[in-house]
Amino acid sequence: MDAIALRRGADAPEPIERPRPVPDAGEALVRTLRVGVDGTDHEVLAGTHGTVPDGEDYLVLGHEAVGVVEDPNGTGLEAGTVVAPTVRRPPNGDPNDYFARGAADMAPPGATLECGIDGAHGFMAEYFTAREEFLVELPEALAEYGFLVEPASVTEKAVEHAYASRSAFDWAPESACVLGNGSLGLLTLAMLGGYDRTYCVGRRDRPDPTVEFIESLGATYVDSREIPVDALGEVHEPMDFVYEATGYARHPFEAVEALAPGGVAALLGVPDSWTFEVDGGRIHRELVMNNKALVGSVNSGREHFAAAADRLVNLPTAVLDDLVTDVYGVGEFERAFADDETTIKAAVEFHNQ
Amino acid sequence: MDAIALRRGADAPEPIERPRPVPDAGEALVRTLRVGVDGTDHEVLAGTHGTVPDGEDYLVLGHEAVGVVEDPNGTGLEAGTVVAPTVRRPPNGDPNDYFARGAADMAPPGATLECGIDGAHGFMAEYFTAREEFLVELPEALAEYGFLVEPASVTEKAVEHAYASRSAFDWAPESACVLGNGSLGLLTLAMLGGYDRTYCVGRRDRPDPTVEFIESLGATYVDSREIPVDALGEVHEPMDFVYEATGYARHPFEAVEALAPGGVAALLGVPDSWTFEVDGGRIHRELVMNNKALVGSVNSGREHFAAAADRLVNLPTAVLDDLVTDVYGVGEFERAFADDETTIKAAVEFHNQ
Repeated sequence: MDAIALRRGADAPEPIERPRPVPDAGEALVRTLRVGVDGTDHEVLAGTHGTVPDGEDYLVLGHEAVGVVEDPNGTGLEAGTVVAPTVRRPPNGDPNDYFARGAADMAPPGATLECGIDGAHGFMAEYFTAREEFLVELPEALAEYGFLVEPASVTEKAVEHAYASRSAFDWAPESACVLGNGSLGLLTLAMLGGYDRTYCVGRRDRPDPTVEFIESLGATYVDSREIPVDALGEVHEPMDFVYEATGYARHPFEAVEALAPGGVAALLGVPDSWTFEVDGGRIHRELVMNNKALVGSVNSGREHFAAAADRLVNLPTAVLDDLVTDVYGVGEFERAFADDETTIKAAVEFHNQ
Repeated sequence: MDAIALRRGADAPEPIERPRPVPDAGEALVRTLRVGVDGTDHEVLAGTHGTVPDGEDYLVLGHEAVGVVEDPNGTGLEAGTVVAPTVRRPPNGDPNDYFARGAADMAPPGATLECGIDGAHGFMAEYFTAREEFLVELPEALAEYGFLVEPASVTEKAVEHAYASRSAFDWAPESACVLGNGSLGLLTLAMLGGYDRTYCVGRRDRPDPTVEFIESLGATYVDSREIPVDALGEVHEPMDFVYEATGYARHPFEAVEALAPGGVAALLGVPDSWTFEVDGGRIHRELVMNNKALVGSVNSGREHFAAAADRLVNLPTAVLDDLVTDVYGVGEFERAFADDETTIKAAVEFHNQ
């Protein structure tokens, strides 16, 4: 079968031929429909994130997938069910405490592999296998856009954790700002509900499809080349909620300034080491005197996949149509990895239902 | 009556004579028993924190008080009830939204005064008045040590907010570290329950009464001159919970490194501006990849006073006896402000019941 992989030492994806996998006991065989491409895939290609599985020459790419159960193979799943796979798998196939508790998303990096990213093959292949516990049933309506469930689940978790940090008092957020107009930032902007005003920070000149998408949602585009994140409060308004999806290491510190009293910033980026100056006294004081919080979050659990699926089926289809700008067949997979300014979200299609 | 105040422009407390206050409608008159001294008082004296009330020549000091209702004056309180006053008051006597909602502790600095600290007279006087909503009834048993309820309430709030940030997943903290062996740090160490192992960070040579207190609680003393906070995880163990009570601006950043996966640091210090270098990329990545959080917290509400009173009456009296090293009469008030290494917690006594 066709698969798309990154060879050890290479920096671009390539097509490979692999045997169709045979599910082990407890695993189902899934026919892959579509697999999305995101910033993490580009980090994997660049070699700044992730690893090829031990003892292998390549890593099958892809961690945002939707598929259909081809062979339940004795699991509780039914053939034909639309599913999305979760991303984390136990090292050496041996479930540690995090996996045993169903809390793999809380595992530190050393206690987990990540399919398509770190030490385990991903889903960019015509078929893949997974244990039932790693497959989340999706509504039929998400056969097309179900590859968005994984990134949406990452947002569900981050928002859940950030909001939890505000649950000890009566928090009534009115303003939210997403840092980053990449696909995760824009998907998150579309998912955020209940705010009077939303903002999204990017670094693009108009006309630009991401700016159009932001404005189509009724949100305000902020160009951080003109208005730095720490000036958001002054120029626009202090933000009750900030969602960082840039991986720009200054943003958590600048976000403290951008937050309204009682506000929280959810952090999702994974930058490399970078030493710079901050007014640490001011950041510390601001966090304390205004009851602010910074909450880091990575990955997601089954419950976040379920919440994400719920959220996505309730979004207008037009929003998802606008977000997913490119879907390519396997023969054109390279185009899904193009990092150009007309692409918002691209996916590779392996089967059409 | 006798009171202890800081004159505008001065840097030491002095005794003053004031008329005994007459309660307005809705206010009770309270006979002051004891008023504690803490780090914030020293900041007020040093002029780095707080302000003298508008139009006045001095600020009556003291924000940690216990007293007895002398004259209920038509409020729902009963004469003879032991009470602790809350600290925040609305500017211009006009309750803003935070006060109207009973959430004064969440008000930004501009929306509140603080008795004995910022723009409103404190409780270091033979009598004070307060509206019923600003007085919390304490059990009789706390007549002696009820001035610890205010600092303990600040910890109750910070712990509540920090724990809330971990409520979205199954968090089972085993290790906790208090940064700071001042009176708030040590009181907090005594209050922390449910941990397998606790630590307290200071900068004192043995023999030292704070180190003895730490060890009497079964906690481990860590000298940060030898083991910096960001090395705690390596030398001792990663900390599930960190409580920062130093006001040292590097500590929030170092705490990120000290935290265990899924850990949280509660921040309480209020440093001045101070610009320094940090590996912001590493801090950002650590927060995200290990699901860590930083939660700032200031002040406390009535519910935290009630929780603190509960906690304190259940501590062994010997612990409070060890913590409160010095209680002075009004005539010796200066000694309560001495910042020496034999004092853990000092208070001024205005009435003996």
